[in-house]
Amino acid sequence: MTVDVGDLVARAREGQPRAVARLISYVEDGAPIMREVTHALAAHTGHARIIGLTGSPGVGKSTTTSAIVSEYRARGKRVGVLAIDPSSPFSGGALLGDRVRMQEHATDDGVFIRSMASRGHLGGLSWATPQAIRVLDAAGFDLILVETVGVGQSEVEVAGAADTTLVLLAPGMGDGIQAAKAGILEIGDIFVVNKADRDGADSTARELRHMISLGSGPRSGTGEDRWTPPVLKSVASRGEGITEIVDAIDAHGEWLMATGELRQRRLARAAAEIDVIAVGLLRSRVGALAGLDQLAQLVVDGQLDPYAAADSLVADLTR
Amino acid sequence: MTVDVGDLVARAREGQPRAVARLISYVEDGAPIMREVTHALAAHTGHARIIGLTGSPGVGKSTTTSAIVSEYRARGKRVGVLAIDPSSPFSGGALLGDRVRMQEHATDDGVFIRSMASRGHLGGLSWATPQAIRVLDAAGFDLILVETVGVGQSEVEVAGAADTTLVLLAPGMGDGIQAAKAGILEIGDIFVVNKADRDGADSTARELRHMISLGSGPRSGTGEDRWTPPVLKSVASRGEGITEIVDAIDAHGEWLMATGELRQRRLARAAAEIDVIAVGLLRSRVGALAGLDQLAQLVVDGQLDPYAAADSLVADLTR
Repeated sequence: MTVDVGDLVARAREGQPRAVARLISYVEDGAPIMREVTHALAAHTGHARIIGLTGSPGVGKSTTTSAIVSEYRARGKRVGVLAIDPSSPFSGGALLGDRVRMQEHATDDGVFIRSMASRGHLGGLSWATPQAIRVLDAAGFDLILVETVGVGQSEVEVAGAADTTLVLLAPGMGDGIQAAKAGILEIGDIFVVNKADRDGADSTARELRHMISLGSGPRSGTGEDRWTPPVLKSVASRGEGITEIVDAIDAHGEWLMATGELRQRRLARAAAEIDVIAVGLLRSRVGALAGLDQLAQLVVDGQLDPYAAADSLVADLTR
Repeated sequence: MTVDVGDLVARAREGQPRAVARLISYVEDGAPIMREVTHALAAHTGHARIIGLTGSPGVGKSTTTSAIVSEYRARGKRVGVLAIDPSSPFSGGALLGDRVRMQEHATDDGVFIRSMASRGHLGGLSWATPQAIRVLDAAGFDLILVETVGVGQSEVEVAGAADTTLVLLAPGMGDGIQAAKAGILEIGDIFVVNKADRDGADSTARELRHMISLGSGPRSGTGEDRWTPPVLKSVASRGEGITEIVDAIDAHGEWLMATGELRQRRLARAAAEIDVIAVGLLRSRVGALAGLDQLAQLVVDGQLDPYAAADSLVADLTR
């Protein structure tokens, strides 16, 4: 099968959903064509704002995402959504389908929603996520929402992938001390206590604000340029508090631009992405080196320690 | 501080617990001295049998481990235990202390128990685990039990680190289909349904046996050499079924020796370990390359795609 990547990218840029879906499939499959796709996209990226949204299971991430999408549509913006699904490292399949999430926005050309499996990442971001973001960016979406289940590591990853990170909590699930323990205070640009009609919403919000006032996120700037993460309340299932969330996302976007923090975050992200790809390339070369089996024998026989063996491999590779 | 690693290793080999503890601390801290320690240990390793023990929270791992230790002590063996504790990637601290686990064996010179945090591995094995195993191996322990909470990935890792892997389940928690989904059928050399005085133990064991008869673990050998994982029942808190578990561990150890599978597993393990270290070395070199920042700028500005940038980095490194 010959694929005309240039034509596919052109059609994606015209807003054809099927072209967008096909490009994402290519990058998700890690097909050899992924390189060609990424190359063809490069010149058309950098325009979309990337919004990460994370939280524990049950805080209402999907409902909130859907409500945020509706609000941005009402403001005339095109929105892409990548929902990273937790999946077994063994099955590789997405637990939640696109269909379930699509319903409300199914007939809207200005919305593209895609579930992606988080293969081998235990709820974290798939390695394909940055490339899928590029596809949506090149396809002209103004905002790209990346939704992940928060299970520790993935929250840090979503913060790395996004310009603005929303952390969702629910009353009683995420009080301030728990949040501090889980490390989410450091990654959230905006905190949302969803299901705020439940008991304890006010005290959860208060505790969060207190914890935020005590510490400072390493990504929050300094002095006058400092961003203090707001703590908002919402009942996403009834659409309450969504306007305020979207206003806060836009305010953070303006802060990112005004302070130069946007470019800093994107530079750090690009460097991390290049690093991961480079290490992957190097790893495949290490695995292919003829000497590995022999070095393993020497280690098993106690004639060599594993560090010395690794030194030898690296020397072979970089000679 | 000047550390005489040779002296420390000599004292560890004489069975001095404080020397063993100190060496493990060095490898756990990832101190620069870790390389020297690993080098000094190499010639003294390869004698201990490494037993992995995994299972979901609540199946009774600690109790079973303690009972297995007692049984091996009764058989005249020295036993080291590494308990890998789940911990936040942010805190780095072990949730369960050595003290709690030590009580029963606290005054026994033939037992060494150590909790290790699983920093950044989400319940998986710490990168320091293989080196801590080396310390206990060189210190002359006949068996090393590596206990991990099973949360998916870590189960696969414990199987990779061990010669023999025990998978613990409890009635109603781990029926056959769940076990198959979680991928544990592939990694268990021995299955133990603990808390077998509870309802459903027989049906859980029966289902497991059925699932095992349907599939075959990729590490189980073929034909006459084939190892069929036994499914045992125990009530570890009362010491019931422990003799049978230890007999099964020993039988599997003999099978590993007789078939040459032991060496195959250890070669694969050493190769994986060298690979991880080599990739780590390469990664640190990539991060240190002067060109990365500039490449990141080109990527952010859409003038280069990240794959081309990574190619350029790798070319610099391997030129």
